[in-house]
Amino acid sequence: MVRKSQHKQTTFEIISVGNELLIGKVVNTNASWLAKRITEIGGFVRRITDVRDDLSEISSAVKEALKRGTKWIITSGGLGPTFDDMTLSGVAKAVKRPLKLNKRAYQMIFEKYKEMFERGILKSLDITPERRKMAELPTGAIPLQNRVGTAPGVLIKFGRQRIACLPGVPAELIDIFENELLPIIQKSIKRTYMVERVLIVKDVIESALAPVIKEVMSRHPTIYIKSHPKGRESGASIIELHLTTTTSSPEKIEKEMEQAVQELREKVAALGGMAEQ
Amino acid sequence: MVRKSQHKQTTFEIISVGNELLIGKVVNTNASWLAKRITEIGGFVRRITDVRDDLSEISSAVKEALKRGTKWIITSGGLGPTFDDMTLSGVAKAVKRPLKLNKRAYQMIFEKYKEMFERGILKSLDITPERRKMAELPTGAIPLQNRVGTAPGVLIKFGRQRIACLPGVPAELIDIFENELLPIIQKSIKRTYMVERVLIVKDVIESALAPVIKEVMSRHPTIYIKSHPKGRESGASIIELHLTTTTSSPEKIEKEMEQAVQELREKVAALGGMAEQ
Repeated sequence: MVRKSQHKQTTFEIISVGNELLIGKVVNTNASWLAKRITEIGGFVRRITDVRDDLSEISSAVKEALKRGTKWIITSGGLGPTFDDMTLSGVAKAVKRPLKLNKRAYQMIFEKYKEMFERGILKSLDITPERRKMAELPTGAIPLQNRVGTAPGVLIKFGRQRIACLPGVPAELIDIFENELLPIIQKSIKRTYMVERVLIVKDVIESALAPVIKEVMSRHPTIYIKSHPKGRESGASIIELHLTTTTSSPEKIEKEMEQAVQELREKVAALGGMAEQ
Repeated sequence: MVRKSQHKQTTFEIISVGNELLIGKVVNTNASWLAKRITEIGGFVRRITDVRDDLSEISSAVKEALKRGTKWIITSGGLGPTFDDMTLSGVAKAVKRPLKLNKRAYQMIFEKYKEMFERGILKSLDITPERRKMAELPTGAIPLQNRVGTAPGVLIKFGRQRIACLPGVPAELIDIFENELLPIIQKSIKRTYMVERVLIVKDVIESALAPVIKEVMSRHPTIYIKSHPKGRESGASIIELHLTTTTSSPEKIEKEMEQAVQELREKVAALGGMAEQ
């Protein structure tokens, strides 16, 4: 039933690190932001995993994603100076490469603290072990410049697979993704586009709509239709239908999308409901 | 460094099912809500996994959680009437039990549609294959009543492990968790409580605070202190310190918490900063 075309896309996994996610203190908006951006540029996000600040949990999650053959693994969180920032240790363990002081990363961090020292935020320009730690990367890794905060992002090549580590502070994650990582990802993945439509269906409950969705999807096998109930089945029924398709030539698919939408509208009307775009 | 006491707690994993999560259309608030509630009642959420509406992905995620020895696996989403609601098929595959019509689940669903029929929302009281599907549970499973929507929740016993499947609509998930699942969970887990404090630190950057956190934690090994940078390291620095501990007797720990907070305040002041509760 699931579109086979999905597997032609480049696969991604997101691994978010942080106890705050596992105790429900923080909602994982980093993962949904990354998933949205990756989908927009044509990538296929296969799995999102949240793990604790725990070396063996981080390392296991990365190893499992590598084993699944996922092309791009993007981690968020755990790059900072505190004892429980251990994403790079976990990744190093997963790829079996030791952590080593990276000169470029050290230079990036030094420049940040130098600027803070000159602005009077720091009393001494001392690169303490906690600060130095942020420049200790798995051997062969490439640091990615952080324009917003201190800890650089990290890119690791592992055979044909790639691991990118981003900070957990949203503004830093976005900055490094957009300015450093995106150009590299775009070179490595097949260009595809997601085309989508949203249809709001009123007065037809989801179980009555289910066979309609199935029928329209069977007539348009490249289009995936997902229903999201917004009202309650037993109360006023409002269902959002989300039509998506991934294509390398978006112009061609537009006409088919319109046809699918038209068919849905007619079938919903026949069931005594209304469908609005 | 991580508190060993964590492993004394009952372990939980959350598996959220739905393409909408993996394309970044929806932020996973179900997982954070569940994680918060489970933490409040003394459970330890080890991992959160989001997978697509894909039979083999769902089944793999459940199998992996079972293999890790996690006591309680809670899934959200994929219980509805559409073709791509396949959580129960995935769980059935993972535990190697066939799906079978469950009489109690069928009765629950029938009552819902009967009520809709009587209120004029449904034109005929026809239990179509799509509606019947919601009552097809892995053999031996127990349906959990859904007071808000149609699809019942599902509880499966697998040796000493438990799998609970909840709907993806937040109001339905909350209803079943609070009214049906919580009393069962509370019977099965050790009673522990989380005690927490929040301290806002101003004018000390995270890398300067890191050794302070380490020192205070070494003096109070039962207390976990996590720093969350709120301002930017290179701008005005605001850091939230979150102190937590899990205990079976919350009264005893209060004094130690106060001591740890006091020590942090003194050390922050010595660094020229301010710490407020």
